Amino acid sequence: MNVNGTPTRTIRPAPAARAVDIIDQTALPHDFRWLRLASLAEAAHAIRSMQVRGAPLIGVTAAYGVALALTVHADDATLRQAVATLAATRPTAVNLHWALARIAAHLAPLPEAQRADAAWAEAAAIAEEDVAQCRAIGTHGLALLRPLAGRRGRLQLMTHCNAGWLATVDHGTALAPIYAAFDAGIPVHVWVSETRPRNQGLLTAWELAQHGVPHTVIADNAAGLLLARGEVDAVIVGADRIAANGDVANKVGTYLKALAAYAADVPFFVAAPRSTIDFACASGADIPIEEREGDEVRVVHGRDDAGQPAAVRQLPASEAVANPAFDVTRANLVAAIISERGSAPASTDGLLSLYPEERRG
Amino acid sequence: MNVNGTPTRTIRPAPAARAVDIIDQTALPHDFRWLRLASLAEAAHAIRSMQVRGAPLIGVTAAYGVALALTVHADDATLRQAVATLAATRPTAVNLHWALARIAAHLAPLPEAQRADAAWAEAAAIAEEDVAQCRAIGTHGLALLRPLAGRRGRLQLMTHCNAGWLATVDHGTALAPIYAAFDAGIPVHVWVSETRPRNQGLLTAWELAQHGVPHTVIADNAAGLLLARGEVDAVIVGADRIAANGDVANKVGTYLKALAAYAADVPFFVAAPRSTIDFACASGADIPIEEREGDEVRVVHGRDDAGQPAAVRQLPASEAVANPAFDVTRANLVAAIISERGSAPASTDGLLSLYPEERRG
Repeated sequence: MNVNGTPTRTIRPAPAARAVDIIDQTALPHDFRWLRLASLAEAAHAIRSMQVRGAPLIGVTAAYGVALALTVHADDATLRQAVATLAATRPTAVNLHWALARIAAHLAPLPEAQRADAAWAEAAAIAEEDVAQCRAIGTHGLALLRPLAGRRGRLQLMTHCNAGWLATVDHGTALAPIYAAFDAGIPVHVWVSETRPRNQGLLTAWELAQHGVPHTVIADNAAGLLLARGEVDAVIVGADRIAANGDVANKVGTYLKALAAYAADVPFFVAAPRSTIDFACASGADIPIEEREGDEVRVVHGRDDAGQPAAVRQLPASEAVANPAFDVTRANLVAAIISERGSAPASTDGLLSLYPEERRG
Repeated sequence: MNVNGTPTRTIRPAPAARAVDIIDQTALPHDFRWLRLASLAEAAHAIRSMQVRGAPLIGVTAAYGVALALTVHADDATLRQAVATLAATRPTAVNLHWALARIAAHLAPLPEAQRADAAWAEAAAIAEEDVAQCRAIGTHGLALLRPLAGRRGRLQLMTHCNAGWLATVDHGTALAPIYAAFDAGIPVHVWVSETRPRNQGLLTAWELAQHGVPHTVIADNAAGLLLARGEVDAVIVGADRIAANGDVANKVGTYLKALAAYAADVPFFVAAPRSTIDFACASGADIPIEEREGDEVRVVHGRDDAGQPAAVRQLPASEAVANPAFDVTRANLVAAIISERGSAPASTDGLLSLYPEERRG
């Protein structure tokens, strides 16, 4: 993605400085600024506080977090502790655990002296794969969107949360096919839902604006009306974990859009790379759902009249709040899973058709 | 409803002062304060800016708005202009038009000298009827809720927006059965959805707290997860207009909750008085949906650290926003309409069983 005209990835390793630079996503859409992570603790904090977020980018950041830890000490205990610390940051997105398992398996057999360099290299390899996979998701997703565009001469899409460039290393998952359609000259317009309580939809609006893609922000509540009115040709979202049966955990509110899309006979697509699929997880009921701080609902952050960071409390601290961060969309509501291998029905057979190497027995 | 222990209605006529006092709902849940409306223009502004809101209370406020206008001049032109001004404030809630038609029909035949007094009296009569109807809705709603409470020894309810005491003159529509259940000793807990962008759910939380009813605030996005998890025994909402076929227009986001309730086999109840039913409106497709200012989404109001009113901008003014204020829930998703006459299926026959006098031919 270009930011202010310059090709930019969302995470930049600086191994010579024993650091990795990320975009502080808590400052967007107001300020675009880099933040240097120089330790395991800073990497874990960045994931937990959502300075980095989005399932694929969390995985890549965690891999670099291991590299940061091993740059200081490369013994087995440090490796184990780094993996445990990072794994404990957020429970739902499985890419985190996938990336940690991969880098740990790669590093464990190596002599300690080689581990730090190998960790930086493996994290970089995971990042490169993510870029390639997201680009492929864009191509496969475009193949699904193109026929829909033929109907009205333009393509009205809806997305939820941010599954864009900012949620990955580059291109995005759900937004990759949208960028591909836009770049192919298809007249695209995107309905962007705010995504309370953390408002990641505003990140989506910001990055669509960077790329010049026409879009309109809506309150999450408005999605049903727009779908029922026929103002949406397809809904496309990312995922934090896809179970073996095709059930999809994604940002809370996704399920409501899937229901409304189904009721309106509008296809609901889920775009995600292999690292988001958890073949060990039988169904959505087995996916842990993160519960976050109530103040994410009670307090709203933005900018004051002078453009300075500010917050308002909309609900007293005494009011009880429940704040689940994800929900589960059952496979029957999903028209297709779009991965780097292609697209397939959201079902065990569909997922295994994309990844036949996962077939057992 | 008691506020700080004192029985309080939401609107208080002061005809001797040629004024009507309302609770400024834009200051809640932070400050409870009265606001004096002393002219037609102030009444119209109060409705448009949502200082008063809620379909029944809008109707009552509009009736008092006519009284305020006629207190100055009581000629036909003033009456017509008052009705036209108030009718133009908000398009969706039909109670507004119902109350204006009723008071205009009552006043038009009268000599000018009697109109002002008659207007105050008729507005007060509309208010009294609203109180009695809401009380009856509570009784009829309790009859539907009581069997559900038997299942688990407690009653988990969900509502959307504010259809409580604050949306009416007293008791509320959707909240009336909840207050009745609580007062009957049934252990009740209410999931209160925030209701972006105007956050009327925070009004619901505030008034439930005044009455001591246990409740938890959630982001609108979380409703689907809670319903799918079996954490809700019934959803109960109000309405801004019910079409003759049982389709329901209510605060945007209602439809998404209705879909999720239907998918979870949880009853979805709509509580509303006669004045909300528009027998002249064939179906939901004929109900006008109000589109409000984009800044309702872009800017969030609350209190700063010192407890003073403050606002933050979460989205630049340059970002396009769509802000429909209502949506339509199709009748097939509604388990029952609860009115002051009892409860009935959401259908033409169901509504006519409650109001047989509306049967034609």
